Amino acid sequence: MLELLSEHACFGGVQRFYRHQSASIGLPMRFSAFIPAAAASGRMPALFYLAGLTCTEETFPAKGGGQRVAAEQGMILIAPDTSPRGAGVEGEDAAWDFGAGAGFYVDATTEPWSRHYRMYSYIIELRELVVAQLPVDPGRIGIFGHSMGGHGALVLGLRNRDLFRSVSAFAPIAAPSKCPWGQKAFGGYLGPAPEAWQQYDASALMATMSSPYPNGILIDQGMGDKFLAEQLHPEAFEHACVLAGQPLTLRRHAVYDHGYYFISTFMEEHLRFHGARL
Amino acid sequence: MLELLSEHACFGGVQRFYRHQSASIGLPMRFSAFIPAAAASGRMPALFYLAGLTCTEETFPAKGGGQRVAAEQGMILIAPDTSPRGAGVEGEDAAWDFGAGAGFYVDATTEPWSRHYRMYSYIIELRELVVAQLPVDPGRIGIFGHSMGGHGALVLGLRNRDLFRSVSAFAPIAAPSKCPWGQKAFGGYLGPAPEAWQQYDASALMATMSSPYPNGILIDQGMGDKFLAEQLHPEAFEHACVLAGQPLTLRRHAVYDHGYYFISTFMEEHLRFHGARL
Repeated sequence: MLELLSEHACFGGVQRFYRHQSASIGLPMRFSAFIPAAAASGRMPALFYLAGLTCTEETFPAKGGGQRVAAEQGMILIAPDTSPRGAGVEGEDAAWDFGAGAGFYVDATTEPWSRHYRMYSYIIELRELVVAQLPVDPGRIGIFGHSMGGHGALVLGLRNRDLFRSVSAFAPIAAPSKCPWGQKAFGGYLGPAPEAWQQYDASALMATMSSPYPNGILIDQGMGDKFLAEQLHPEAFEHACVLAGQPLTLRRHAVYDHGYYFISTFMEEHLRFHGARL
Repeated sequence: MLELLSEHACFGGVQRFYRHQSASIGLPMRFSAFIPAAAASGRMPALFYLAGLTCTEETFPAKGGGQRVAAEQGMILIAPDTSPRGAGVEGEDAAWDFGAGAGFYVDATTEPWSRHYRMYSYIIELRELVVAQLPVDPGRIGIFGHSMGGHGALVLGLRNRDLFRSVSAFAPIAAPSKCPWGQKAFGGYLGPAPEAWQQYDASALMATMSSPYPNGILIDQGMGDKFLAEQLHPEAFEHACVLAGQPLTLRRHAVYDHGYYFISTFMEEHLRFHGARL
């Protein structure tokens, strides 16, 4: 069951905040949903947005600026939180890049994280939930995200083509096995063996794909992004796409940084990319 | 002198955050400025946004969603902080509706507030500063704001027609002398005598005006706003405008509340209102 925490009229529709008990996580989870007015007359496409480190379900609706075009296109926007909250795991609030606010969209397999930190399964669960509870057309669901959430969107999309028909990302952590953020997170959640990491590494996954993701992939990357050189590695994903024959539009934008002034600038184009494919 | 604290590429232009020493306030103050790419080729109109209680210079650029249309129109957006910071006045952080984050755009006359809490004069000072330091056309400057900042925009605009050529507001505190927020703030900053309050009360000011504000005034108000009945009183301003012969477009929007999901919905129309008059 969904508990409606708050709702706010927005661009003719409604921006809602929900809480529900998650079976995957074993705790209450929160997510936001923008529902255009047109949803009153039937099911419509939905687009999942996965946010980055330190963010919550409120970051995207407050700062992303997606509601205007979603209202115009007739598209529901779903934004989950970025980790379990209040799991009670020692150290979960000690770092901004691991634990709370940093679930990395993986199912942890190591103690003590494996009990609650199961964000990969949670996103699949949330997809099922919104199909059941909101006017979402299950055959027309896409996914995108930013940074850690761009990594999550690429991985969820590539591994679940039947569930997410379109994929894009802003400044994704595109090869997490090769960067400090990813190594810390994957080592902590999945253990030291790199073989266990590959299923959550978009570049590694792409290297194993026998056929392209059918609708193409869009990635925007700012060249003034201070995390680009060390953490993001879009060139690794680009290289894997070339080898796999995967159509990829990777746009490198001079000057733009890693934040929401960058994201909001290109939000409309991402929504239209998904709208054309859903 | 302006100290550039940070800048972020945004919609082809740049979202900047500045600090400077304010003569009016006697302390460093911060403000934000969105500068479209077209500013490189000459001076352009500017629009001041005054934010509401608890907000800062970051609220408008992060949540308002104004940059897209400002970039398209060729308009600089200026957003000051909402009070002095670190004034060291006892009790300034004790309440969310008085003191820090709640300067109410008045020049305090009572001790101990009168030394630093001079936000009315500060907005005039900031206008002069951005004309001197940024590519702003001094003859094409407008002002708008939200809630406490809507009050500030109406008062600054009505009292300085030569400085601010266009005025609009979202859910302004339209008759502060008659509501608890305004009575607390004016009583604290200006003392108990209501005569001293009138120059900062948009409805009272309008009642004394001998000729209409030349370009008309736009106000948007949500009818689901929980502060409407007790704090905002747009009907008092509307009544004063009728008596003064002041053209006013007061739009009452069913369901919309007091927050930035409401503001962002109607942001584009406010920017176009100002753009047509500047």
